[in-house]
Amino acid sequence: MSVLQRLSFNQVTADPWSLEKAVDNCARSGISYIAVWRHKLDGNATKASALIRSAGLRVSSLCRGGWFSAPTAEERRNRIADNRIAIEQAALLGAPVLVIVTGPANGQTLGDARATVFDGLLEILPDAEKAGIVLGIEPLHPMYAAERSVVVTLKQANDLADRLRSSSAGVVVDAFHVWWDPELMHEIERARGRIAGFHVSDWPVPLPGILMGRAMMGDGVIELRQLRQAVDNTGYDGPIEVEIFNDDVWKNADDRLLQRIQQCFAEHV
Amino acid sequence: MSVLQRLSFNQVTADPWSLEKAVDNCARSGISYIAVWRHKLDGNATKASALIRSAGLRVSSLCRGGWFSAPTAEERRNRIADNRIAIEQAALLGAPVLVIVTGPANGQTLGDARATVFDGLLEILPDAEKAGIVLGIEPLHPMYAAERSVVVTLKQANDLADRLRSSSAGVVVDAFHVWWDPELMHEIERARGRIAGFHVSDWPVPLPGILMGRAMMGDGVIELRQLRQAVDNTGYDGPIEVEIFNDDVWKNADDRLLQRIQQCFAEHV
Repeated sequence: MSVLQRLSFNQVTADPWSLEKAVDNCARSGISYIAVWRHKLDGNATKASALIRSAGLRVSSLCRGGWFSAPTAEERRNRIADNRIAIEQAALLGAPVLVIVTGPANGQTLGDARATVFDGLLEILPDAEKAGIVLGIEPLHPMYAAERSVVVTLKQANDLADRLRSSSAGVVVDAFHVWWDPELMHEIERARGRIAGFHVSDWPVPLPGILMGRAMMGDGVIELRQLRQAVDNTGYDGPIEVEIFNDDVWKNADDRLLQRIQQCFAEHV
Repeated sequence: MSVLQRLSFNQVTADPWSLEKAVDNCARSGISYIAVWRHKLDGNATKASALIRSAGLRVSSLCRGGWFSAPTAEERRNRIADNRIAIEQAALLGAPVLVIVTGPANGQTLGDARATVFDGLLEILPDAEKAGIVLGIEPLHPMYAAERSVVVTLKQANDLADRLRSSSAGVVVDAFHVWWDPELMHEIERARGRIAGFHVSDWPVPLPGILMGRAMMGDGVIELRQLRQAVDNTGYDGPIEVEIFNDDVWKNADDRLLQRIQQCFAEHV
């Protein structure tokens, strides 16, 4: 399989598109995979699954579970229940991976929140195993530590997966989130056999914003080819998701977007 | 010495103030230390030193050396020469520490830039030793990896200091830059004996901006007291710099600023 055939379109890259439009555009562009977000399912994963399958596409992952911490025990229980729904939705979609964004401390101390993440993963793990879904623990960039994810390095994700000891406990490597890490190559090698996803975009200079500042592959400083080869060297040969949060990409998401993504992907990933 | 007596006012916190005004306000507020920036020296460290000493203040550090990477060998040599000037200026000011911000990759690969940082530190180390100045290697937050510092974790700074093997090779712990790091407590303990500075501010939620988004101590999520105690537990009992990059603080830098800083410092650090 050539690298371009591994391209998966993460639908948040064109958030203004409906799922129907994203699926249709992918199918017409020869893209085989799509990564689906829960807010695009309209609560009906079965219908979404039929739509995606009838277009000949496969789902690379469902985004997202996690977000475990909360100030009260009741709220934390609600988070667990929501993760169980996410696992069911992933199974209905035929998604092999549920991406786990661990969430912010949200009223807990940083240390307690990190313990809550482990406890939460341990609690939903049997559900994932039963459903045949891998929980893909995705470290986010440390600039999101306060608002989105207390798990901020691949080492942390690997440590969690080590402790969970299950083929349903994996990690997701997103170039934008991990490229800066001096331990990255060591931790990618350490993730051998448990890499459940690889996401690409780029880090532009200057960074235009914290949340919506990602760039198209090649428009930033990340050494994407080197990173992809390191991930491949672990034996990972699954889909590679293009996930770009960028206001301009959203505004200008027209029929040529997927072609541009394919070109940049072929050239830089 | 009480903790409040260790407060050092990093003059960039009120960048609109001249050095004269900053020194005068510190002296009147009972603040004993000031951290000086090179762009405030007007090229005359001797005059600045006399001004600071005559007010009874001491300099905690000079900001900054480093910024080693450049696309050509000639430019890299210029950077070394500039670092030598910075060491001389620190000596003239009686600053025990020159803060080292290592700089971005600046046309080199990330790996090469990190090697350039080590080479640069090794080259200026004899000058620092001769002048009795500690090079305080300060890891910046990973969100500055592309634009300001290829050294982004305390582990990296400790690794550099290990390899430099000199009492003139130290590290600076800035709460804003390192609070997110799961290895932080371990690396602070590892820095025992080589901590050359401790900087405080806070991480507000949401973060209003990448460069100018720091908050007053207590207005964010960093567990500053715990962090200060961890630094103290290594035996560090030197000055604690308040360094806040924030547009609103700059705009509203009036006579009450230092009093507010002292209150927040006493309450949260």
